[in-house]
Amino acid sequence: NLPLTVIAGPCQFESVDHALMIAGRMKEICADAGAGFIFKGSFDKANRTSLSGQRGLGLDEGLRLIADVKAALDVPVLTDVHLPDQCAPVAEVADVLQIPAFLCRQTDLLLAAGRTGAAINVKKGQFLAPWDMANVVSKLESTGNTRLMLTERGTSFGYNTLVADMRALPQMTRLGYPVVMDATHSVQQPGGLGGASGGQREFAPVMARAAVSLGIAAVFIETHQDPDNAPSDGPNMIPLDAMQGLVRSLMAFDRLAKADPITI
Amino acid sequence: NLPLTVIAGPCQFESVDHALMIAGRMKEICADAGAGFIFKGSFDKANRTSLSGQRGLGLDEGLRLIADVKAALDVPVLTDVHLPDQCAPVAEVADVLQIPAFLCRQTDLLLAAGRTGAAINVKKGQFLAPWDMANVVSKLESTGNTRLMLTERGTSFGYNTLVADMRALPQMTRLGYPVVMDATHSVQQPGGLGGASGGQREFAPVMARAAVSLGIAAVFIETHQDPDNAPSDGPNMIPLDAMQGLVRSLMAFDRLAKADPITI
Amino acid sequence: NLPLTVIAGPCQFESVDHALMIAGRMKEICADAGAGFIFKGSFDKANRTSLSGQRGLGLDEGLRLIADVKAALDVPVLTDVHLPDQCAPVAEVADVLQIPAFLCRQTDLLLAAGRTGAAINVKKGQFLAPWDMANVVSKLESTGNTRLMLTERGTSFGYNTLVADMRALPQMTRLGYPVVMDATHSVQQPGGLGGASGGQREFAPVMARAAVSLGIAAVFIETHQDPDNAPSDGPNMIPLDAMQGLVRSLMAFDRLAKADPITI
Amino acid sequence: NLPLTVIAGPCQFESVDHALMIAGRMKEICADAGAGFIFKGSFDKANRTSLSGQRGLGLDEGLRLIADVKAALDVPVLTDVHLPDQCAPVAEVADVLQIPAFLCRQTDLLLAAGRTGAAINVKKGQFLAPWDMANVVSKLESTGNTRLMLTERGTSFGYNTLVADMRALPQMTRLGYPVVMDATHSVQQPGGLGGASGGQREFAPVMARAAVSLGIAAVFIETHQDPDNAPSDGPNMIPLDAMQGLVRSLMAFDRLAKADPITI
Repeated sequence: NLPLTVIAGPCQFESVDHALMIAGRMKEICADAGAGFIFKGSFDKANRTSLSGQRGLGLDEGLRLIADVKAALDVPVLTDVHLPDQCAPVAEVADVLQIPAFLCRQTDLLLAAGRTGAAINVKKGQFLAPWDMANVVSKLESTGNTRLMLTERGTSFGYNTLVADMRALPQMTRLGYPVVMDATHSVQQPGGLGGASGGQREFAPVMARAAVSLGIAAVFIETHQDPDNAPSDGPNMIPLDAMQGLVRSLMAFDRLAKADPITI
Repeated sequence: NLPLTVIAGPCQFESVDHALMIAGRMKEICADAGAGFIFKGSFDKANRTSLSGQRGLGLDEGLRLIADVKAALDVPVLTDVHLPDQCAPVAEVADVLQIPAFLCRQTDLLLAAGRTGAAINVKKGQFLAPWDMANVVSKLESTGNTRLMLTERGTSFGYNTLVADMRALPQMTRLGYPVVMDATHSVQQPGGLGGASGGQREFAPVMARAAVSLGIAAVFIETHQDPDNAPSDGPNMIPLDAMQGLVRSLMAFDRLAKADPITI
Repeated sequence: NLPLTVIAGPCQFESVDHALMIAGRMKEICADAGAGFIFKGSFDKANRTSLSGQRGLGLDEGLRLIADVKAALDVPVLTDVHLPDQCAPVAEVADVLQIPAFLCRQTDLLLAAGRTGAAINVKKGQFLAPWDMANVVSKLESTGNTRLMLTERGTSFGYNTLVADMRALPQMTRLGYPVVMDATHSVQQPGGLGGASGGQREFAPVMARAAVSLGIAAVFIETHQDPDNAPSDGPNMIPLDAMQGLVRSLMAFDRLAKADPITI
Repeated sequence: NLPLTVIAGPCQFESVDHALMIAGRMKEICADAGAGFIFKGSFDKANRTSLSGQRGLGLDEGLRLIADVKAALDVPVLTDVHLPDQCAPVAEVADVLQIPAFLCRQTDLLLAAGRTGAAINVKKGQFLAPWDMANVVSKLESTGNTRLMLTERGTSFGYNTLVADMRALPQMTRLGYPVVMDATHSVQQPGGLGGASGGQREFAPVMARAAVSLGIAAVFIETHQDPDNAPSDGPNMIPLDAMQGLVRSLMAFDRLAKADPITI
């Protein structure tokens, strides 16, 4: 029943200066609001809708950036891994390894991530029922790692559309690990722009608030100072200058929810 | 931005005494918690999964019951109509005519209901997108009636399963009418028991809280003193003795949500 | 294992001359191809997406039209009913009463239709699993009527989209009644044009052929000499002048399927 | 408009003898029926539902098995790859590299596979619309490789269920490459047995026939002499001794479909 943690950052790392700007601002916002904070960014967008989508800085430069951000700001950093071989080097600098939703059943990736001993955040696949995450958890627990987080990011609902089923949050909580609501990707419209994914940015605060009211551990929100010109996921990122209001608002719901826990 | 209204009652009317017992208790609970209250019950379950499901008291006895409840307790009463011819007689005693989800596109039923001048609550069909409710609203508005409410009760999601998309609540709010979350039927499993619908009662408070946190006008919850022996919808009704705690809890979220409105 | 029956006609009746033109041409096409034929049309579109959609000729004029078509062409006629009171008068002239998909669980409509003794075609609701049709069948059988047909017309699949699950055809066949594929409405995009439904006419022959290859009893296809100017369902109707080729093609697949039955 | 190719084999390679037995029998069956044949098997099941599911022979032993089968039977072999590094060694022995559905947007895997110059079969992700395969195709074409096949294997439809949308077949055909129907996995019930996937073997021939009637290039069917004791995908594999009847039946529909092509 700790206060809400906000996992936030740009969809992809752009530069050290950019990361420091966003991480620094988010650290202030979260400290001010009484929220925990984990800085999020990707060094590689490994499954862009189309080949022309920007991939990111790459592993080496990305890890240097993470190290720089941690040295400068002393914040925990989460980043996603895509191949088993990436897990060990990423775990040397990052605090949380994230398993992308499409890859949440790739056994070798889960085992390699688990074996690093780092905290692991698994995004539930768009094709997976909440209760199926029990099998994902077992794969990770087989490595002895129990520093796990489970994230709802929407489920396939017809074509080019996701729906976030609020039941998934208490269902995953029953698995015994902190549950995260990804308010950004659950309002994504996969492939919705033809050569890129669309999104409904206006609904990210809706998803975040509904989920936080249920007493979850963390909310995942991508943010950018200029979403419309961000290299990826612009349509569903929240502008950085809207984050203070959003985090403050969410913390009020979080306090109420944590004082009045809901169980199933 | 009025306080939350609770629309509650048994799935179907059983007897005047039973209705008075539930309506009386719910009136106390809502008054105590600062919530509005509308008593809900059906005089006919016109679309039971199977023929052997109990249909209810029927129109004549049902309307007498509604009149008795109103005389004894002075509470507004909502009941559903299934045929155009039922609208006028029902509107003579009931305060709110409800259009069932399966019937939400039946033009003649909508027009007959609208023409009574009574308040109308339309349940969004399990097969309808939130934005398609604009056409339903237009049909009703064509009668000059603008005393409308729009209810989310879940959307078809594969077979025998519904999902409640939280985006539907602010989307329907944009249509300009009070929005209701049906926490009971959105956790129904249609046909899930073979000859009857199943349900996930434990998730009704989850749906209610998530929705109330978004600042909706009303929540719809079916309740019974003994759900497992109720003539219909037992698997998803909330026990009457759990309602006080639930309503109090929801009112805390409602106050927070109304003080911090979310818009899209 | 009779040859395929083609249930075809305009979405709604427009005039006696129009009905005779389409029914006459379809009768020729089907006779020529060795297919059975039932003429289809609606006297009332009772659940148009929006109020401005044309409703049709109405009950009285519609029944006169049906009688005229039968007198002139000696073809069986199918039309849909929307209210219990309509069943008896419609059954006096029409050969097959059709229960619309949205209304497939309205018990009184099913019972009234069954009691006429006419053949009944029930469209499976967009919200219903194939196996749930067992309950619909039981309601009808309770009237002693076993002249039933069951129609697949697509299942809700996200918003404004339907998907036709081919498994539904053999599943419904197991219920013991002839199964029909509605190739027109399974490619409808409900509400897809905002104030009207869209459709993907080009996929109707795809659905028809895939279904006929499984050995079904009948295929349901709406047709019009000028679909783009038809009063309803234009986007998914097949042009009348394409019907001869389509029926001939389907009959070849039907013969093969009937000679090599598939069972589950 | 070549005759149908049957891609068939056990879900996972078990031993050289087992592979030779199945591949040998399938080669006979296909030659006898006039069908093309590609032998299919996996050397690694990299995304089993649970950790306790058997993984398979592994890369080295699997590639030796493929070489042995090709040497003994002179049949083309298809196998799936899971990591970019596997592509080059697998392409030295296998004829077709298959991209698993969950991985169909992993850019590096697509590029590595494409660069081998081998034929590539991409399974459409359960989370992908048919038209989104255009982006997958573009990634592969960027390597200069145009020896591509695109496979329908079902789309997420609620929880633990897939649905095969027949529209996907002509839609993917428009992308200019041979389209394959995976009749085995489109009737899978992912995670449906809790710790393993269930399946509806009885519907695999239904899916195969419906798809073949639309004139596709190939059908993908997993088969085993004893499906109920197979190490994976038993619930949806076809018994080997039923394959001759199935292939002969499909070829009759294939000849009819190829003589009467359907286009959209």
